[in-house]
Order: sequence, then C-alpha cells, then structure tokens
Amino acid sequence: MKTKAAIAWKSGSPLTIETVDLQGPQSGEVLVEIKATGICHTDYYTLSGADPEGIFPAILGHEGAGVVVEVGPGVTTLQKGDHVIPLYTPECRQCKFCLSRKTNLCQSIRGTQGKGLMPDGTSRFSLDGKPIFHYMGTSTFSNYTVAPEISLAKIRKDAPFDKVCYIGCGVTTGIGAVLFTARVEAGANVAVFGLGGIGLNVIQGARMVGADKIIGIDINPARQAIARKFGMTHFINPKDTENVVDAIVQLTDGGADYSFECIGNTQVMRQALECTHKGWGRSIIIGVAEAGAEISTRPFQLVTGRKWEGTAFGGARGRTDVPRIVDWYMEGKINIDDLITHTMPLEDINKGFDLMKSGDSIRGVVLY
Amino acid sequence: MKTKAAIAWKSGSPLTIETVDLQGPQSGEVLVEIKATGICHTDYYTLSGADPEGIFPAILGHEGAGVVVEVGPGVTTLQKGDHVIPLYTPECRQCKFCLSRKTNLCQSIRGTQGKGLMPDGTSRFSLDGKPIFHYMGTSTFSNYTVAPEISLAKIRKDAPFDKVCYIGCGVTTGIGAVLFTARVEAGANVAVFGLGGIGLNVIQGARMVGADKIIGIDINPARQAIARKFGMTHFINPKDTENVVDAIVQLTDGGADYSFECIGNTQVMRQALECTHKGWGRSIIIGVAEAGAEISTRPFQLVTGRKWEGTAFGGARGRTDVPRIVDWYMEGKINIDDLITHTMPLEDINKGFDLMKSGDSIRGVVLY
Repeated sequence: MKTKAAIAWKSGSPLTIETVDLQGPQSGEVLVEIKATGICHTDYYTLSGADPEGIFPAILGHEGAGVVVEVGPGVTTLQKGDHVIPLYTPECRQCKFCLSRKTNLCQSIRGTQGKGLMPDGTSRFSLDGKPIFHYMGTSTFSNYTVAPEISLAKIRKDAPFDKVCYIGCGVTTGIGAVLFTARVEAGANVAVFGLGGIGLNVIQGARMVGADKIIGIDINPARQAIARKFGMTHFINPKDTENVVDAIVQLTDGGADYSFECIGNTQVMRQALECTHKGWGRSIIIGVAEAGAEISTRPFQLVTGRKWEGTAFGGARGRTDVPRIVDWYMEGKINIDDLITHTMPLEDINKGFDLMKSGDSIRGVVLY
Repeated sequence: MKTKAAIAWKSGSPLTIETVDLQGPQSGEVLVEIKATGICHTDYYTLSGADPEGIFPAILGHEGAGVVVEVGPGVTTLQKGDHVIPLYTPECRQCKFCLSRKTNLCQSIRGTQGKGLMPDGTSRFSLDGKPIFHYMGTSTFSNYTVAPEISLAKIRKDAPFDKVCYIGCGVTTGIGAVLFTARVEAGANVAVFGLGGIGLNVIQGARMVGADKIIGIDINPARQAIARKFGMTHFINPKDTENVVDAIVQLTDGGADYSFECIGNTQVMRQALECTHKGWGRSIIIGVAEAGAEISTRPFQLVTGRKWEGTAFGGARGRTDVPRIVDWYMEGKINIDDLITHTMPLEDINKGFDLMKSGDSIRGVVLY
C-alpha cells in the first residue's frame, strides 16, 4: 500500500513529506493507522546527527497512537479495530529480561530494532524500490506503519488519540520514573532537574503518589507557572542561586529523598546525585547525555548511602503499564491536555521541531 | 585509672606503647576492658596520613571485643560484666537516620566522634596532663577504653574475644554488604573485586545466602586457595586476563547480578559497575578511595538499568545486627578462624601493621 510519511534523509536536514510504499504485516506483525504522534527530543537527537546509532534514510517518530488495520499471521493478542500505542520498548513476556521481574528492557528484538528493521531483518518501507529504515520499531511519522505485535499496547477505545499518543514516550517516561523505577512513597521530598515535558511529568507523578516537597530546578523562569500547576511546591533557578545543591539540602533538612535528572547534562546529573539525602537518597537519570560524556563523583557520596540509578521508558512494561496510564488519564489522575501546547498537520512537522528546539512548545503533536 | 595503650603521635610514625590516664565513664558512657582487637586497613589509612580527617595524637583501633567494667550515670542497657563489641557506627535508635529504617548511619554523635572526642566534647584519655584523642569512638588499641552506651553491642558471653573482635569491622562490613545492603538472593551471580579480609567476607556472605556463581578477582594468585575455601566458584586474575569486564559478562551470560568493590580503587569501581547485568545489575562500593579520587562512567550504564551504590559497616545497625552475626559465627554459619592469620601482644602492634601492608596477613589480632 501507499502511505504519507515524513522522511529523514540525512542528519541535520529537514524532513520531507513523501508518499512511500508500505509492505503489509508479516508474521507476528501488525499494520496500524497512526492517528496522532508527538514530536520528542529523541527524534531531534537522531535527526541532528548527535545519535551515534542514527540510521538514514528513516521514518522517525515514536510517540503515536492509532488503530489496528490488519494483523499478520500468528498475531493472537490484537485484531482489526483495536486501539493501540506503539512501543519503542517492547514487552515479549518471554525473554530473560521480561521474566526477570527486575527490568522493563525487553531484549527480544533489540538487534533488528537497533538496525532500523523488523524482526525478520527487512524493512516494510520503501520509496522508488529502495528501502527506508524503521525507527525505534515505531516510525509514527508515517500515517500507516507496521510494528511487531509485542511492540503495541492495546488501549481503551474512548481515549483520545491526540492526547494519549504522548503516553507513548514522555508521559510514561516521567510518571513511570517516579512510580515504577523510584517507587517514590508518600511524604518523600523530590527534586526535579529540568522542567520540560519529562520533568513536568515527573512532577505530576510525584504529586500523584503524595510526595511532600516537590522542588523544580530550571534556568527558564517561564516554566515556573506550569510546573506549579502540575504540583511543584518550590522553584529554584540556578541563575539566581549560588549553590543549587546547598539550596536543596537546606530546603529538605538534609537533602532530597529522590532526585530526577530530566535534561541529559552530566554536570547536572552530579548535582542531582549530591543534593540527595545522606543514608538513603536516590538519584535517577532520565536525560540522555551527548555521546561520550561521562558522569563523575567522589565514591564517598555512594559509601554514605546515596544511590545512582537510571531509567528508560520510566521502567514501564509497555503492554502492561501503558494501558493503566491511559486509564489514569481518562480518570483525571494525570493531566496531559495542558502539556500539549501545539498541534499541526504532518506537512508542518518541521515547524514542530522548531517550536521544540526554541522551548516554545512543551509538546507538539502531529494530527493525521 | 591507668591503662596501657598504643599511641599514634603523628602520621607516618610507628605507634608507641604508653601508660596513659583514663578518666572514668561520664553520663551515658561505659568503661570497657578490651580483650582483643583486630588491626584494620582503616587504622593504617589514618596512621599513614592519607585520611584528611585524621587527628593526632590519638589511640587508634576500632575492631575490638571486651568486657564492661563500669557504667556511667544514665546507662540502662549495659551493666558490669557484659561482653561487648565497640561500634564505630553507633545505633541510638532515636535520630532521623535510625528512625528512617533506610540506613545504618546513625548521626547522633557524628560531630564529636569525628573530632576524636566523647559526646560531651572532651577526651577521656590523657598523658602527662595533655589530652590524647579518641578514634572512631572506639580506641581499641588501649587495654581499657571508654565508649558511649550507644556505641557498644552486647554479645553472648560464650563467644571468644580473639575471634569475634573481627565482627567489629571486617566481618560485618563484608557479610553485611551482601545481606543488609545488597540483600543478595539465592541463585544470584556475584563478582567480588579484591580478596582481602573484606572480600573474603563478601564471598562467605554470598555463599551463606545461596548465591550461584561467586567470582573473585584479585591480582594476588595466593588468595585463590582461601577464597575457594570461603565459597568462591571462579577466579579471575586481571594480570592474566585481557578484559576483566568481558570475562565476567561471559561467565555470567550477561553480567553479574551484584558486584562488590573491596579495594578502594576508583578504576576498579568502574569495572565493578560495568561488569553487572544490563537491566538490574547492582554494584556496591565498599573500599575507601584516596582523598579526592573520583569515579566515572557513561550515564548510559545507569539508564540501561545498572545501579551504583555503596555501603558503610555493611549496612549493619551495630547494636541490632552485630549480636546476630556473633550468633552466626557460634553456630558455624560463618568462618572467622581461618581469616585470623596472626596474633600478637600489644607491644608487637607495629609488626601487625607491617604484616597487613605486605599482604602476608589477612587479619592480625592483638591480644591483651
């Protein structure tokens, strides 16, 4: 079949809208009509050329929602008409990682996904007979896409695509880091470094579980108002603060119980660790640092009880947890609407990237 | 009263045996006759001058066992004749740290202990009218010492002082790191970097809880035999191995579930982190690095699920857990006897330091 898609031809160039060929779903695969997709920093990270594993030409996009159009042979858990969110972290429920009960990092199709291919080692997308690569197993910047069955979370049908698409990455990454990775408990003090889309979701996750002080740190004062709306109780602007670590230690009588780095800056990651409480502070890295950058600290910070950790996709098991987060949105437990500041047709997707880079949007969403 | 003690006059100098004045126990304090004390690397760390917080002149020693001789006013949990192990990490059971249930790092007397003083801000030791400082709140290189009530673990009376003194530091640090900090589960794969006194106790802790592969790493081939006796299943000598991290990953089908750094070398700490399993590996720093040294890694190591942590005194709450470990020794669950390779009178304590520095002893113990 034919489908409209935005193609990333090479690093640093704008996307172009093309009509590409899409092969139908093969064994264990599903054809999905994407109804909406967010534009995420990770798409830009790859498009910019900073991602050492970036492959071109490719159809980017990993934060979508849509409807199953056709299932390939052997697909048993989905059928035509099901509403789904594609998962860049699959959940096969059979590999060593899934069965460990200790991680969400299913590795069953890691090799081919990282190469921009479906599990059989080929691409479903092509243009003029030449293959176009998949991206993160999702390629939601195409109106129709093919994904493995294990990479699709089935969600309720009354959930609006233009909002819950954001659960495909940003919402789950932020809220999940609090609920699934850190398991923050009621009454804890939390520090959140970076108040972009991820940080704001960390904040509402902390509010959801009853955190006490929720301290936001950002150099952009314009983020203070919306962060307070999402549950932030204290704001620190590093530009106005001599020592951010000390300020957090003072505010919390010894340090934050949990901190979250939502930027990808290795110097901030160190601050995030060192602002946590002696004896039990846990610092969770969410942000993706530039290739080759390293984090450092004195081991004394760890020997005295702080823990340095990280999270990917918020520790969420996609097929299991994403439908629950959709429920929480539908029940009003979490706010997505206020985070989606811009929508646009696919033809304007490059403007969506510009809005994100300038910091003018929190989340821009493409509506098909 | 008078007591015989080994005095550290200044960094880098041998200890001298002196008869010093010891003031009786003040409010909340206890006078203990030390019967035996181990010589630990931490004593040498301070004596060498490497410890930036070292204070002189002082009476070192923090791995003792003895008998209560007299209690000061207000002491309620100990009485004359009780057998005790002095604790450099006290357990007041009333401070924010003790009540957190998340750490063993009681802070109630941290300020004065760090200054070599009793909680009232003075020293009980003096010579020719000049104060001699306490060390770690224990000063077990004195035949008689005074310690706060909260810094003494009451133990059973049938336990031999010359063996259980080692529970005052090394045994608890190693076994506790496995049982209390990491909480290693049966069937886990464990890597132990450094097979000195701490590492061997980590190994027997891992065996005690039913670990599967227990991999020891040391550049000293002579340590292989005793480590196998304590439960090590695989030995890696970095001098014979091109890539220690890869070797461990191969041995464990993806990485160790837990690793322990028992040396204090920041480069080894990085190896210890990076040899753990993607998704859930946890690396525990036990060794004390030189002042100012830093650990580094790529944040990707943490984002993909590894956790970097540390432990002090094995995460043990001294008054609660040390008596249990004494029980385990008496029940034959752990082996201490084979670790105590040398004993000596106080007069030969400098020889004990030499044996430790050369690696000829695992643990040397002074018998009073």
